[in-house]
Amino acid sequence: MDLQIRTSPILLAPGPTEVDPEVLRAMSSFAESHFAQPFCNTFGDVLTMLRRLFQSQDPNAQPFVIGGSGTLGWDFVATNFIEPGEPVLCLCTGYFSDAFEMCLATYGARTKRITVPIGAAPDIHEVEKELKRVRYKALVVTHVDTSTAVLTPLKPLSALLKRVSPETLLVVDGVASVACEEIQFDAWDIDIVITGSQKAIGCPPGLSIIMVSSRALETAKARKAPANTWYASLARWLPIMQNYEKKQSSYFATPPTQIVHALHASLTSILSRPLEERFEQHRRKSAQVKAVVKALGLTQLTTESEYQANGLTAFWLPDGLSSKELLSRVTEKGFTIVGGMHREVGHQYVRVGHMGYSVVGEPERHIDCGLKALKEAVAEYYASRSGHVLPGEDRGPVGLARASL
Amino acid sequence: MDLQIRTSPILLAPGPTEVDPEVLRAMSSFAESHFAQPFCNTFGDVLTMLRRLFQSQDPNAQPFVIGGSGTLGWDFVATNFIEPGEPVLCLCTGYFSDAFEMCLATYGARTKRITVPIGAAPDIHEVEKELKRVRYKALVVTHVDTSTAVLTPLKPLSALLKRVSPETLLVVDGVASVACEEIQFDAWDIDIVITGSQKAIGCPPGLSIIMVSSRALETAKARKAPANTWYASLARWLPIMQNYEKKQSSYFATPPTQIVHALHASLTSILSRPLEERFEQHRRKSAQVKAVVKALGLTQLTTESEYQANGLTAFWLPDGLSSKELLSRVTEKGFTIVGGMHREVGHQYVRVGHMGYSVVGEPERHIDCGLKALKEAVAEYYASRSGHVLPGEDRGPVGLARASL
Repeated sequence: MDLQIRTSPILLAPGPTEVDPEVLRAMSSFAESHFAQPFCNTFGDVLTMLRRLFQSQDPNAQPFVIGGSGTLGWDFVATNFIEPGEPVLCLCTGYFSDAFEMCLATYGARTKRITVPIGAAPDIHEVEKELKRVRYKALVVTHVDTSTAVLTPLKPLSALLKRVSPETLLVVDGVASVACEEIQFDAWDIDIVITGSQKAIGCPPGLSIIMVSSRALETAKARKAPANTWYASLARWLPIMQNYEKKQSSYFATPPTQIVHALHASLTSILSRPLEERFEQHRRKSAQVKAVVKALGLTQLTTESEYQANGLTAFWLPDGLSSKELLSRVTEKGFTIVGGMHREVGHQYVRVGHMGYSVVGEPERHIDCGLKALKEAVAEYYASRSGHVLPGEDRGPVGLARASL
Repeated sequence: MDLQIRTSPILLAPGPTEVDPEVLRAMSSFAESHFAQPFCNTFGDVLTMLRRLFQSQDPNAQPFVIGGSGTLGWDFVATNFIEPGEPVLCLCTGYFSDAFEMCLATYGARTKRITVPIGAAPDIHEVEKELKRVRYKALVVTHVDTSTAVLTPLKPLSALLKRVSPETLLVVDGVASVACEEIQFDAWDIDIVITGSQKAIGCPPGLSIIMVSSRALETAKARKAPANTWYASLARWLPIMQNYEKKQSSYFATPPTQIVHALHASLTSILSRPLEERFEQHRRKSAQVKAVVKALGLTQLTTESEYQANGLTAFWLPDGLSSKELLSRVTEKGFTIVGGMHREVGHQYVRVGHMGYSVVGEPERHIDCGLKALKEAVAEYYASRSGHVLPGEDRGPVGLARASL
């Protein structure tokens, strides 16, 4: 029995991402009992490997792997670590930061947003002022907001908290950053990172992955009211994760066994090389994408390079070119990129994902070929508008299509 | 690239279950965007097929497919349809019914349990008395409790509600019954059925599947307080499901694209033949398993046949034989069955699953061979105890192992 034959375009979305054939193979592993020893071994290894991915050596910190999407991690944070009425400061850099804040508010947190213009990162001085004004239970930051490609650096926030509000939990949405941007969980005193399986980790979607510091675990245990959740309950999942890491079965809800196998395969691949090398590969590939966007005369949502994500690029569309047209031209050339994601200006920009297997998978040239398709698509558009030429080109698309990437 | 070579035992657990090779193949489908048209088509078809699986023709009823385990369906019920303080009557026939009640209570429902001795089904007269005493918002029944293999017939409960408490919602946990026991969603006036992908539906675990009647949708819409959940929010998922069924993309959280493909493959297979035929196959295979258990001189937890599940069999261990020993003997013969699941007597019984692909997959003889392994394992145990012979056998295990199944 063979795996499927590829008929779909190469996926250069900011998640889900292309998957290593070894990971895809693990997705089709045979049915097995979540109580059986082989599965306990696999799940146990996954949890131990996650500690390494987060660069954590604290045995009292705890990784969690739960069936669900990355979004479920927001519920996990909102229900276990924050009690109704507690103040939470949210740094909002796009759709996902806004939604995380809404999730927290749904469960009763007293949230305060620091918002920024589209493509900007939060002003750390404003954050400092706010942290001095109110004693926040948590500072919630979306490391990379997938909707705008804005990266908010974590290290300065960590240092700021240490200085002005050391009791505030540092909560990170790392859905679009874990495994493509550096995160030093212990060294940066991070309390919670949530992510999903399907972005830079390079696994199919279906797992919510959460890393929790020993301090945050103590906070959850010390809460006054019981957590108002069942499926997202830390108290119920904690013994399950502890047992599985000891390679003993334990039950709260059936884990998606095949995706856990796939995660095992992707983590094994990720950790077979130094993490710093992986992050550097993403920085290099990101710079290449951003250079092509610039060469096409297009502007990123984020203009300052220190706030530009390394796993995706978001750029404004050329005047007159619709997102639908560009996406469809690129799809015809065999690649999927996606539209913008913003209530007001979503239709005015597009996003290219460059993370995980498409960046680090040696035999593939997804990004190079995808960039070529993007350049051709933009060039075709310019060519279709008589009298328009590409910036830096004196003759339309033909030269461009030939240009070496 | 080939799929994995099988090295693990055949899984005869009451979920996860063995998976059709076509479904496994779909699990390894290439990465694709959840916004792209091909995925919208697949997801749309899945939702439409689910209506057929539930035998519902009400266009205003709504199937939901959400990344997570079957357990998440409990949160979906507890947060969207029941308001804090509302009375809910729970029929408790095992671990899962008890846990569903605990989930409801966690979210503030005023729950009342009707409990039964191990292996018994609820007394309908007691249910009637209780329904007349209190005007319950919902009657919650676990169609088949996977922990005890007790089946609680739905049709009489539906008729009872119609007669004495027509406003009470009929909520069914169908995790271990959907696709192996008859469920007529419309005809039996069921309001909510929850299930998971990994049991009789024959797909790997990872999807929470929920069918909701138009009446229950109205109830959810009319609630006074907003639902106290984010990830399990009906209000947020409803437009997503409606759009996907129209084959239009829509976003709330990233769906596990590969498992949705697998569900598409399993539903396509299920619906390629009349459902009644499928249910009959399960009844027949179940009778065969139960006959073997009886022939071994062993007793089921449930003694009355009308309350015995057709997708699994739970039976008490012979005196002196531990669950661990029996399971290990069966595993050595290439099959996985599982232990009991009950706080007090879990170690005194075991469970054999017989649902989905292992029952209806024509080329396989999982159940027949698994029964042979079970018979041999029990016989070996008897043989190991000198002086003991199998009921109905005058010479220990050899004859038994040869017996035709």
